[in-house]
Amino acid sequence: MHTMRKRIYYYDTDAEGVVYYGNYMRFLEEARTSFIEDLGFSLKELSKNGYIFAIKRQEIEYKYPIYYGEIIEIKTSVEEITPYRIRFYYEIYNSENKKTTVARTDMVCISPEFHIKEMPQELIQKVKDKCESKREKFYL
Amino acid sequence: MHTMRKRIYYYDTDAEGVVYYGNYMRFLEEARTSFIEDLGFSLKELSKNGYIFAIKRQEIEYKYPIYYGEIIEIKTSVEEITPYRIRFYYEIYNSENKKTTVARTDMVCISPEFHIKEMPQELIQKVKDKCESKREKFYL
Amino acid sequence: MHTMRKRIYYYDTDAEGVVYYGNYMRFLEEARTSFIEDLGFSLKELSKNGYIFAIKRQEIEYKYPIYYGEIIEIKTSVEEITPYRIRFYYEIYNSENKKTTVARTDMVCISPEFHIKEMPQELIQKVKDKCESKREKFYL
Amino acid sequence: MHTMRKRIYYYDTDAEGVVYYGNYMRFLEEARTSFIEDLGFSLKELSKNGYIFAIKRQEIEYKYPIYYGEIIEIKTSVEEITPYRIRFYYEIYNSENKKTTVARTDMVCISPEFHIKEMPQELIQKVKDKCESKREKFYL
Repeated sequence: MHTMRKRIYYYDTDAEGVVYYGNYMRFLEEARTSFIEDLGFSLKELSKNGYIFAIKRQEIEYKYPIYYGEIIEIKTSVEEITPYRIRFYYEIYNSENKKTTVARTDMVCISPEFHIKEMPQELIQKVKDKCESKREKFYL
Repeated sequence: MHTMRKRIYYYDTDAEGVVYYGNYMRFLEEARTSFIEDLGFSLKELSKNGYIFAIKRQEIEYKYPIYYGEIIEIKTSVEEITPYRIRFYYEIYNSENKKTTVARTDMVCISPEFHIKEMPQELIQKVKDKCESKREKFYL
Repeated sequence: MHTMRKRIYYYDTDAEGVVYYGNYMRFLEEARTSFIEDLGFSLKELSKNGYIFAIKRQEIEYKYPIYYGEIIEIKTSVEEITPYRIRFYYEIYNSENKKTTVARTDMVCISPEFHIKEMPQELIQKVKDKCESKREKFYL
Repeated sequence: MHTMRKRIYYYDTDAEGVVYYGNYMRFLEEARTSFIEDLGFSLKELSKNGYIFAIKRQEIEYKYPIYYGEIIEIKTSVEEITPYRIRFYYEIYNSENKKTTVARTDMVCISPEFHIKEMPQELIQKVKDKCESKREKFYL
């Protein structure tokens, strides 16, 4: 599991005083990017080499609101990986360590022409190695 | 069903040249707001009167990308309504009338103190009236 | 002068209850795009043909806040045009017709390699024609 | 002077492949917030205590584009302070230490009713102390 902390700014919130439901997607992008970096890969380099990662599906449940100025913690893991897709699972905790949000993203590997493409074998292996000892399932 | 059209601006897109996955949530807010307005209600007035509508759950599937400059069409319907929750279902079509995206939002009614609250009976009735002749299910 | 109306959504606002200062830039993009369209040009087509328009400078003064649910009016004119640059000037009015905001954008024409480039003569002429009878200055 | 580093994500960029001109405002909010925190103050606490800080004026010049995946550096200083207003000045540097952007923000202190208000004397003093030895001018 990968953990990152993040501060909530005014730009994250809306007039109801809490984080806008669409802005969580930015947090999740940051969490995924950092998860992949920690494995020694860079989404930017992968993109330059013809491996583009696109979001295919997103689901998210908002249990409690998050407020301006809070420091949140995003815990990210991989639930499932196939040669074409990584399924991320996230839990977000607020400043009082209460679980506010759970989310799941299906990220697929595509070519620059937007066709489905196998991701690099080395990346798949690194993800497997990281998650193997956990309860995560793999369909490879 | 409610239909609205919308143009895609640079601010909707990202460096892969397509609409950023998190920016669809703004489109869905516009579609919901317009759906409710068409029934003769205003989310702003409801909020002033103590009926705040918060997003509880969101799911979205990205079938095809949407590009800068396209005019999209968002078709919105209500799949289910209870006294506390409206479940919206949306389909997005691109300039060539291809279905690019489907999404579902659970919007709940809460008090200014963020407690679950029954929404106005008149709103529930108006939603039912609009959707009754359709295949939508109701759990009232 | 070109006028467009726009509704304020939750996604435009922040936790102080008003439109976030950075989100006005989206309004200005919409206003510019619509201004250019009204002259018979499309920023998308121009971009495809190698005329990319980039923002070089932005200034904006926030006189009064704008609130959730307001319908604003954005009035756009061109203050100055050279073969390489269009200077837009905007005034934003709120639902009570109070001037809330004034802004100015320098938009330059560049090549796909990001070098300064003369914009199409026909576009310059159309902008001049539109603004000629007004008090706007031209440096051509 | 205060320095912070920040990574550029997809959500910062647009379809021209570079950071969207409006998204810099988020970077500047982060930089200001961090500047104030480093002086021992919190914008959140100040807001709770009735000192709200609103943006009155913004100007920004885009010299060079910033790309996806870059790590930028934002250098922030205070150019001028009065009992009612702080004028921030920023320079942004890209991964190759090239100055890409300069910006200036006028931030004013207001009451919860949105009236101009003197900011806490202690905050003014801390800002002065930090900037005194520099070339910054003060109008107190």
